[in-house]
Amino acid sequence: MALIVHKYGGTSMGSVERIRNVARRVATWRAAGHRMVVVPSAMAGETNRLIALAREIQPQPDPRELDMICATGEQVSVGLLAMALKSIGVDAVSYSGWQVPVRTDSAYTKARIVTIDDARVRADLDAGRVVVIAGFQGVDELGNITTLGRGGSDTSAVAIAAALDAEECLIYTDVDGVYTTDPRIVPEARRLDRVTFEEMLEMASLGSKVLQIRAVEFAGKYRVKTRVLSSLTPPDIPVEIEAKSGTLITFEEDTEMEKAVISGIAFNRDESKITITRVPDRPGIASQILGAIADANIDVDMIIQNQSIEGTTDFSFTVQTNDLQRAIEVLNARVRESIGAREIIGDPKIAKVSVVGIGMRSHVGVASLMFRTLAEEGINIQMISTSEIKISVVIEDKYLELAVRALHKAFGLDRPAAGAG
Amino acid sequence: MALIVHKYGGTSMGSVERIRNVARRVATWRAAGHRMVVVPSAMAGETNRLIALAREIQPQPDPRELDMICATGEQVSVGLLAMALKSIGVDAVSYSGWQVPVRTDSAYTKARIVTIDDARVRADLDAGRVVVIAGFQGVDELGNITTLGRGGSDTSAVAIAAALDAEECLIYTDVDGVYTTDPRIVPEARRLDRVTFEEMLEMASLGSKVLQIRAVEFAGKYRVKTRVLSSLTPPDIPVEIEAKSGTLITFEEDTEMEKAVISGIAFNRDESKITITRVPDRPGIASQILGAIADANIDVDMIIQNQSIEGTTDFSFTVQTNDLQRAIEVLNARVRESIGAREIIGDPKIAKVSVVGIGMRSHVGVASLMFRTLAEEGINIQMISTSEIKISVVIEDKYLELAVRALHKAFGLDRPAAGAG
Repeated sequence: MALIVHKYGGTSMGSVERIRNVARRVATWRAAGHRMVVVPSAMAGETNRLIALAREIQPQPDPRELDMICATGEQVSVGLLAMALKSIGVDAVSYSGWQVPVRTDSAYTKARIVTIDDARVRADLDAGRVVVIAGFQGVDELGNITTLGRGGSDTSAVAIAAALDAEECLIYTDVDGVYTTDPRIVPEARRLDRVTFEEMLEMASLGSKVLQIRAVEFAGKYRVKTRVLSSLTPPDIPVEIEAKSGTLITFEEDTEMEKAVISGIAFNRDESKITITRVPDRPGIASQILGAIADANIDVDMIIQNQSIEGTTDFSFTVQTNDLQRAIEVLNARVRESIGAREIIGDPKIAKVSVVGIGMRSHVGVASLMFRTLAEEGINIQMISTSEIKISVVIEDKYLELAVRALHKAFGLDRPAAGAG
Repeated sequence: MALIVHKYGGTSMGSVERIRNVARRVATWRAAGHRMVVVPSAMAGETNRLIALAREIQPQPDPRELDMICATGEQVSVGLLAMALKSIGVDAVSYSGWQVPVRTDSAYTKARIVTIDDARVRADLDAGRVVVIAGFQGVDELGNITTLGRGGSDTSAVAIAAALDAEECLIYTDVDGVYTTDPRIVPEARRLDRVTFEEMLEMASLGSKVLQIRAVEFAGKYRVKTRVLSSLTPPDIPVEIEAKSGTLITFEEDTEMEKAVISGIAFNRDESKITITRVPDRPGIASQILGAIADANIDVDMIIQNQSIEGTTDFSFTVQTNDLQRAIEVLNARVRESIGAREIIGDPKIAKVSVVGIGMRSHVGVASLMFRTLAEEGINIQMISTSEIKISVVIEDKYLELAVRALHKAFGLDRPAAGAG
């Protein structure tokens, strides 16, 4: 009689037949004796349709009104799923975000959850109902509808699981878990049975798009056991089998896990490098450069400043490739002359490769193995950045697949981890 | 600086371009100095799309979940309209029913409005904003979303106008007002400048589908000045001209109006007649017959019991034609034998024609002119039913157009009413 939260994405909710399948899967878990809360996304394509409609009216849509419009996608989903459950004899009730309520701040289109009231949901669970709650949305303290940003339903599900102190939050997706790296590049990539939330955080932010990064942060903050698993298995698969499938995001650094120094190789092709050459090496220069970029609402990822040579230095950083042109324009217009730099060079032909692993903390030599492996393949490293549990390098993009395959093998990820479940 | 409520139907909200036109029209009124509240319906076709989706999941959709789903149509509309207003420089804010809140009872899919809180809307109006409120929907005291039934946005608009004590509620439609009868049948039909709400009530219930009947009831109960007018005029038409167009539903029986005895000829082809012959003429028979019909959830309109002949009587009533077959089955199964009637005869080939007019109260001779007119055209009257301000007859359906034309002429409706206008 555990309390379980299921989350289903837009693809799982993409048609009447698929919604029926979701209902059958939830019914299987209900029949196994669990108290069930389900958080579905909008039907696939619906949110994009609504945004397109809004943009036709107003190219830069008013954020409050955009949230008003976009929240309807999930509202339709919860109604349909509750009906699908009832039609197979499972008592169910649907709630939109404000009905729970899921309280957020007022940052329309990217609101953050503040509190979730569990009273109404608990009363329904006590009455034996499956509770279907709209993901992606909430309500601010003035009663305005808010949304959490794209992929926000993951965050909703984890936050609801935290508020209800659920046993586990199951995120159903079209992949069957988290892999050591992208199997399209490395066929030997293995699914991880477990991954720590810190590792997941690094992998999510590095482009493994299995789970929204804020959902991972929530899982970490509130220690919600969260499992990523496939929605493509039969809906009547026995619960005791399904409960062990996919990848579990954990908080214990158990002994087995420590044996694997590195959990995965993440990568990102969507960044570009900007280098400003011959920047005078004096205080305040970095903030002048990055201040101009921030003012233009451009996100920066890696930042490197080289050793000063004869009073000037080269300053490099990476941005999303679709911000590259604009970033260069901003720098030329607002920064280059005033700081007396020589040149601004944009390079979209780069890729970022990262090795991630909680075990790195207690193991020396990860960096040297990584650099040696790349050197042996003749791959030049352009930038390096490190954190406690990851090392990222920027290389020429044509070497990306080669680098990922070489590192995957060098760190032994193609072999089952000893003792790992 | 009057407070004005505008209501726009699904056709007016049917495309991005049309929504822009609605915004322009509201902006024209705003620029003329009025405080504006706007109640739009869902975009044309949207509610039907949502109902079809729900029926695919559950052929008899759960009413609560159906309302959850259908309420999204108007929620999208208000967001889009508020954006369209902002995009032309008119400050605006949208609200769904629960945000106002529009409180209703819990009769899902056909809820009735109980109270409307005006505090939030007034604050926005005071701040100079146009307030866009979702029609068709509300919230019950437990916080469940409800809808008012098809055409419910008319009722929302009138109820909101009543709650805000608005100067006038303008219902924009694809016709330009209420006519003396259907111009497709009588080309000489004239638009009425004014009609009393009692007349409107009779005409609405008799099939003039300009305005939802519950909206008319609300207008009558709270004495809301309501105007039906065209949404097809240019959106920048001067307010002083538009404010006098269409048909105003009034409460004063002013002197001009009394000169017109009859305001209009209404008709309905969608009813069928059921006659039960040789019914024993004893107490309780009528309730036995109509009780069985009511149990089957079939609505009855006219009811006639003939003079008793030799202890038996013929009993006739009308039902919606699409209920005819089921009504006959119910009567044969449950009533005929037990009351000892001879035969049950269904006749779909009938039509109902009604003359409606508040002036009828103080004028004798309306009935005799009506019956004489029909007799002169050789039209046999099968049933007669009267109320204070209308007389309805059932005739063979093939005579419908002839009867409407003859009555329209006989009551002088093709001539402009003296002094009216």
